[in-house]
Amino acid sequence: MKKFALLLLLPIIGKAQIPSYKPAVNFIQQHKVSMLEEFMHFLAIPNIASDKENILRNANWIMAAMKQRGINDVSLLYPKTKNAPPAVYGEVITPGATETIIFYAHYDGQPVDTTKWATGLHPFKPVLLPGIYDDNAKTISIQEAIEHENARIYARGASDDKAGVMAIINAYGALKASGINPTVNIKFFFEGEEEAGSPHLHEIMELYANKLQSNMWVICDGPLHQSGRKQVVFGVRGDTHVEVTVFASKRPLHSGHYGNWAPNPAMQLSKLLSSMKDDNGKVLIKDFYSDITPLLASEKEALRKIPNVDQQVMDELGFIKPENSSWSLADAVNMPSLNINGIQSANVGKLAANVIPTKAIASIDLRLVVGNDWQKQQQKVVNHIKAQGFFVTDREPTDEQRKKYSKIAMVALSSGYNAQKTSMDNPFAKRIVKAVATTSVDPIITTPTLGGSLPLFIFEKYLNTKPISVPIANHDNNQHAENENLKLSNFWKGIETFMSIMTLQK
Amino acid sequence: MKKFALLLLLPIIGKAQIPSYKPAVNFIQQHKVSMLEEFMHFLAIPNIASDKENILRNANWIMAAMKQRGINDVSLLYPKTKNAPPAVYGEVITPGATETIIFYAHYDGQPVDTTKWATGLHPFKPVLLPGIYDDNAKTISIQEAIEHENARIYARGASDDKAGVMAIINAYGALKASGINPTVNIKFFFEGEEEAGSPHLHEIMELYANKLQSNMWVICDGPLHQSGRKQVVFGVRGDTHVEVTVFASKRPLHSGHYGNWAPNPAMQLSKLLSSMKDDNGKVLIKDFYSDITPLLASEKEALRKIPNVDQQVMDELGFIKPENSSWSLADAVNMPSLNINGIQSANVGKLAANVIPTKAIASIDLRLVVGNDWQKQQQKVVNHIKAQGFFVTDREPTDEQRKKYSKIAMVALSSGYNAQKTSMDNPFAKRIVKAVATTSVDPIITTPTLGGSLPLFIFEKYLNTKPISVPIANHDNNQHAENENLKLSNFWKGIETFMSIMTLQK
Repeated sequence: MKKFALLLLLPIIGKAQIPSYKPAVNFIQQHKVSMLEEFMHFLAIPNIASDKENILRNANWIMAAMKQRGINDVSLLYPKTKNAPPAVYGEVITPGATETIIFYAHYDGQPVDTTKWATGLHPFKPVLLPGIYDDNAKTISIQEAIEHENARIYARGASDDKAGVMAIINAYGALKASGINPTVNIKFFFEGEEEAGSPHLHEIMELYANKLQSNMWVICDGPLHQSGRKQVVFGVRGDTHVEVTVFASKRPLHSGHYGNWAPNPAMQLSKLLSSMKDDNGKVLIKDFYSDITPLLASEKEALRKIPNVDQQVMDELGFIKPENSSWSLADAVNMPSLNINGIQSANVGKLAANVIPTKAIASIDLRLVVGNDWQKQQQKVVNHIKAQGFFVTDREPTDEQRKKYSKIAMVALSSGYNAQKTSMDNPFAKRIVKAVATTSVDPIITTPTLGGSLPLFIFEKYLNTKPISVPIANHDNNQHAENENLKLSNFWKGIETFMSIMTLQK
Repeated sequence: MKKFALLLLLPIIGKAQIPSYKPAVNFIQQHKVSMLEEFMHFLAIPNIASDKENILRNANWIMAAMKQRGINDVSLLYPKTKNAPPAVYGEVITPGATETIIFYAHYDGQPVDTTKWATGLHPFKPVLLPGIYDDNAKTISIQEAIEHENARIYARGASDDKAGVMAIINAYGALKASGINPTVNIKFFFEGEEEAGSPHLHEIMELYANKLQSNMWVICDGPLHQSGRKQVVFGVRGDTHVEVTVFASKRPLHSGHYGNWAPNPAMQLSKLLSSMKDDNGKVLIKDFYSDITPLLASEKEALRKIPNVDQQVMDELGFIKPENSSWSLADAVNMPSLNINGIQSANVGKLAANVIPTKAIASIDLRLVVGNDWQKQQQKVVNHIKAQGFFVTDREPTDEQRKKYSKIAMVALSSGYNAQKTSMDNPFAKRIVKAVATTSVDPIITTPTLGGSLPLFIFEKYLNTKPISVPIANHDNNQHAENENLKLSNFWKGIETFMSIMTLQK
């Protein structure tokens, strides 16, 4: 229906309005089978950043796929630090072009807990299903998937973010195969440790600062808006982590013989975590919200235009009350957050035993907005833990410490990075917004920030550049978790988005 | 030194004081190698109550070991319920004896989490070490273990409670081999699902009520007092469990895109658990302490005589403040308790991912004293969860329930049993106390209750009998947890204890 509507409009809006990339859409239509086959091969290569051998297999695979599409200067950019994953780089110089866009995606994925994936699904054995996974779902063939409008591909990285890598190189490949010239120089940059917090990205930027100059970095990562509309995102939250381990007895104790007397670390941790938030989800850690740079009027205006999807999303997710009832979803991602990513102490279920555990661990995620400094934000959490009466150490407590302190927490501070924002008035960005809008019948969304994080802060710091994000994945993609998936229709639409940006108009 | 001291005393206390079982001690001395070999074979048979096949292997193994020692009427007593583990039974009729003692132990063990056992240790591959496990410990041979005064055997069940089974049958075997007659009729009863809460023990008692009559059940389970002294225990706490699962979003969410807005079940669970205890370990659940039967004067007196080992145990365990600072360890086990046995929500450490988990689970252990009813005690916890605003269900919430309630907890109530106590003035029990005291140079301890639990309540209910407990394991045995172990010196002393009881004097 939408296509038909567009065709009807064509005579009215005139020939000048037909985007120059349009013939390449036919090429995509005709090559869906081979593109999906190729994508599935790519997804079958495990891509956890710490798995050096497989990370390199991914990088080499991408290089081959880029060369096959006629991309030049394809190479691996290594940071100074040894054994860190390389970025995959390539470029296309367009004769006469004076502007350059660098397309970014990352090929590494979040750690996997294979046991949690649904029956028939596996992080590194990609399969196609006719829709969202349920117990009756049967895998379908590539041909069936192409014909099925709700088909999804399931694998780690299917959406976050191998989809980005494939959509970008397929966009260029289709233009090239269709004889359509980009209007700008194009550079490709695919990172290999984004999900590990991009600890060496700045080193690559420092070493290859000349190569990495551009008018705009376009970041393909994250999901579309929950309304299903395409969006251009002008910022990201920062991210860092604090892992807290509370220690009690040195050896696990029988909960009968010692229950009521020996301290329970799971209870101590529960009390500590509880003290961090009030019942309405407000973080109680001192100064947690104090560094925030207020939103600009233009950002507030953009937020007002975003369709409110809160009820739809709550219906989808099966809950009726947001954690913080004073914020809409759109408001909430413009504030710093604190979330428990996981808790563990001894065992539950069939493995539960009658013990008082020796320790209890919580992994805490901190998201940051512009104004927050990630190390300061971590320190606020550490100060809070101390204020709750804990002795804080960065390693397992010694016998001497155990004899001195009644409450002991080991705190591991991860690396992290700050939030980043690009002005919504940036003229080059506005042209990209227009290019994306051209590919969509529905109005597209522009938003000051994504709730998720990317190390865009260091693009500013090391390259003095202001990136924007153009995500393509469906919002219900189980990103970072089990059963990660990508809706195929999002993949095809995403390729079109990038073809439009590569043929950017004045 | 102690042995030498005893020898010096012998001429003074006179021949009449030499216990009749004494010659059998030599038999034990001479057969330690074969007894340990046999014990290690026994420990190598996995013994989780739910593992029906291996449970039966254990039962058959015990039957063979009993027959080898000349025990009669060896058989498996099955409950009415199909597929439940059998108890192993046997008996020895002593000509002229008018009294009967039944010795109880259990051959099943707590569930195991093999990954948590120290390097070189495995729940079902028993090894011998020269002392408490540390990273430098090397396994030693049986011969070395016999010569090493601190040697320990490591395996699930090493102390809880295959040690009981072996000490009891070895005690009888040594008497028999030494030509010493017991003074009482002896019955043997080894249960196969004590760690699963003894759900079918009452059925066995009902079916075999005649066979199971006696003057006294002597229960061998649990540890010696932390002072290292032998003890006779006149009661046990009851035990039951409540497992709570808090639900939030139906699918795991990206903690960036939804952090601050989607409810976090790990935080909800932390707040719920925190609400159950104050900062001094006092349970805040309504009426938690209201059903307690006060201690008798004789029990209070016994408690006063128990050496206070709190500081020693805290030093050993590496903490300086008990959970509840108003109670000594001895006081604490005479009160009902609530302990978190384990918590789990998503993952921590290397497997931690940037998610808001879908659910968070806590396994809660409730210990009970005389006066408490296990189902009422569970219900108090359920009422408390409801009072914290949770909708409580016994299964995964439906979509309708998710649309109706903002806080949802699935509560699984396990089976359980009440506490039990035998009067400290029971005349038959007093003779057993004397028999145990005979085997020890140090004064022995009598105590109104063990902190741990055994289903002794149903002995009263179904057999109208009052049991007592005579534990043998070292207190630092990691019972119920990883690296469970038994000090071999406790094993040999335990065998002597049972030989003395089997030759009970008037």
